[in-house]
Amino acid sequence: MWIVPEKEIAGLMTPEAAFDAVQAVFAAMASGEASNFPVVREAIGHEDALYGFKGGFDRSALNLGLKAGGYWPNNQKRELINHQSTVFLFDADTGRVQAAVGGNLLTALRTAAASAVSIRHLAPEGAKVLGMIGAGHQSAFQMRAAARVGDFERVLGWNPHPEMLSRLADTAAELGLPFEAVELPRLGAEADVIISITSAFEPLLLDGQVKGRTHIAAMGTDTKGKQELDPKLVARSRLFTDEVAQSVSIGEFQHAFTDKSISTDDVTAIGQVIIGQHQGRGDAEVTIFDGTGVGLQDLAVAGAVLELAKQQKKAVEVDI
Amino acid sequence: MWIVPEKEIAGLMTPEAAFDAVQAVFAAMASGEASNFPVVREAIGHEDALYGFKGGFDRSALNLGLKAGGYWPNNQKRELINHQSTVFLFDADTGRVQAAVGGNLLTALRTAAASAVSIRHLAPEGAKVLGMIGAGHQSAFQMRAAARVGDFERVLGWNPHPEMLSRLADTAAELGLPFEAVELPRLGAEADVIISITSAFEPLLLDGQVKGRTHIAAMGTDTKGKQELDPKLVARSRLFTDEVAQSVSIGEFQHAFTDKSISTDDVTAIGQVIIGQHQGRGDAEVTIFDGTGVGLQDLAVAGAVLELAKQQKKAVEVDI
Repeated sequence: MWIVPEKEIAGLMTPEAAFDAVQAVFAAMASGEASNFPVVREAIGHEDALYGFKGGFDRSALNLGLKAGGYWPNNQKRELINHQSTVFLFDADTGRVQAAVGGNLLTALRTAAASAVSIRHLAPEGAKVLGMIGAGHQSAFQMRAAARVGDFERVLGWNPHPEMLSRLADTAAELGLPFEAVELPRLGAEADVIISITSAFEPLLLDGQVKGRTHIAAMGTDTKGKQELDPKLVARSRLFTDEVAQSVSIGEFQHAFTDKSISTDDVTAIGQVIIGQHQGRGDAEVTIFDGTGVGLQDLAVAGAVLELAKQQKKAVEVDI
Repeated sequence: MWIVPEKEIAGLMTPEAAFDAVQAVFAAMASGEASNFPVVREAIGHEDALYGFKGGFDRSALNLGLKAGGYWPNNQKRELINHQSTVFLFDADTGRVQAAVGGNLLTALRTAAASAVSIRHLAPEGAKVLGMIGAGHQSAFQMRAAARVGDFERVLGWNPHPEMLSRLADTAAELGLPFEAVELPRLGAEADVIISITSAFEPLLLDGQVKGRTHIAAMGTDTKGKQELDPKLVARSRLFTDEVAQSVSIGEFQHAFTDKSISTDDVTAIGQVIIGQHQGRGDAEVTIFDGTGVGLQDLAVAGAVLELAKQQKKAVEVDI
């Protein structure tokens, strides 16, 4: 069994490798080569923690396994991050455990890679302005991954707590892009691509605020009740997601689905676009990608980092 | 993170320790301190394998995690055993992964411990004759665990393939007990305690074959369609199990439940007997324990073996 420690991930995994792995697994899902297993997610009644498993199998890459872990809100007091996860890979030919890979940084990288894949395939031609809604831990990963796939000239940012906007300013500076903190009406009007990555439980970006050809990657909603976008905006847009069933149950599209302004027929798995079975943006004014986060993404990036770790002698082999 | 390799388990874990761990977790389930998570079990469409996760949390022992693995029917050709599993334990206070423990032998030990717990609490007084139905890999573990809790004087055995009965004869000899291969009518009539551990899909032991005060541990049925006992026998017996919902869906009691000859009210979690909330056998002629196998059992024995491995310096610590 191979161990790839959390502390090695940053030196091994690049946004490029994460992009390739996530794009490939979305394609495998669309072609029926890969499927996610039912998600287990439990409030365990201890430390207010949520814990669970997201598993799947990708027949084309032979990635089998799960991410296990969850959300421990009191970790901050212990100087640990609140989201803790580990990815376990299994040998698809024998069922034997193959690797344990630190999953914390990988989760941020695979989530950023998913919105970058959506930008690559769905952003309007000539997109120059990137709008960031949310300035938490993951926002920096999102901006970096987006900048790699888009030819952006400037970044606009908004966050419910303005004192956190320095993270967006610093990341834009690192990427050599001018940054401006703005209110949402200006962000919605000027940005060609918008990434929302918040833990909001109410719509932040309203229908009337989004002007012109725009692609929105809604990455924050992963639980019943969470919400970032006005359902009216969802209803008038062309809709894409990682996994349709998840998008209308725990993803951003749950709200428009519940109020019946959209049906599952209105939502396309992004993999269909990647494999050429769906035209993508076409003549749509607004496209939305609902990134709900699936286990196969975790397995894809963990599989990629395991290979890199073995090549670079950063994986530790232990007998089990 | 601690690693406890499969090859160390045999030298670390005793039937005694497995019994104590399983009895304690059944009690914790009954007192509301421990619960199992939904089971994930998938035919992955590769190597005819079944793969999945059984997780849970025991607040009293602070055991959190899952067993992952499954059934790879082609492993035999590779000189590997067909059932492959690994148990992962997590720190309940922080969500960080704590251990990976080889799960193959543990699965046999925890299954044997469950039927032994049922024998301890439900066998008729003065039970002298043990009947074994099934002579596969797990039957030896079952007989050893039963012999530890019961004061048996002889063993009767039956198997669909008689050429395998030597396993039962050898195990009885190891325990110093006389063994006789018999047909099921004699086994049912003479045995005071019967353990069935087969992969049958049809009733083997019929209602009319079971005579007098008898306890039956039905350990083989863990999937829809499997069956070891005549539903009429189930309907006239006092019924116990590890987890009621599982017993009537994928356990032995699924059949009598489906034909409506029993309801969930007729089935008692064995933990209720252990904690003194249910009288157990009482005046019943036949008691049946349906051992379906729950994730918490795996966590309980893995938690116990991890402690032993640390004490005896058999656990390997790796950075993750």
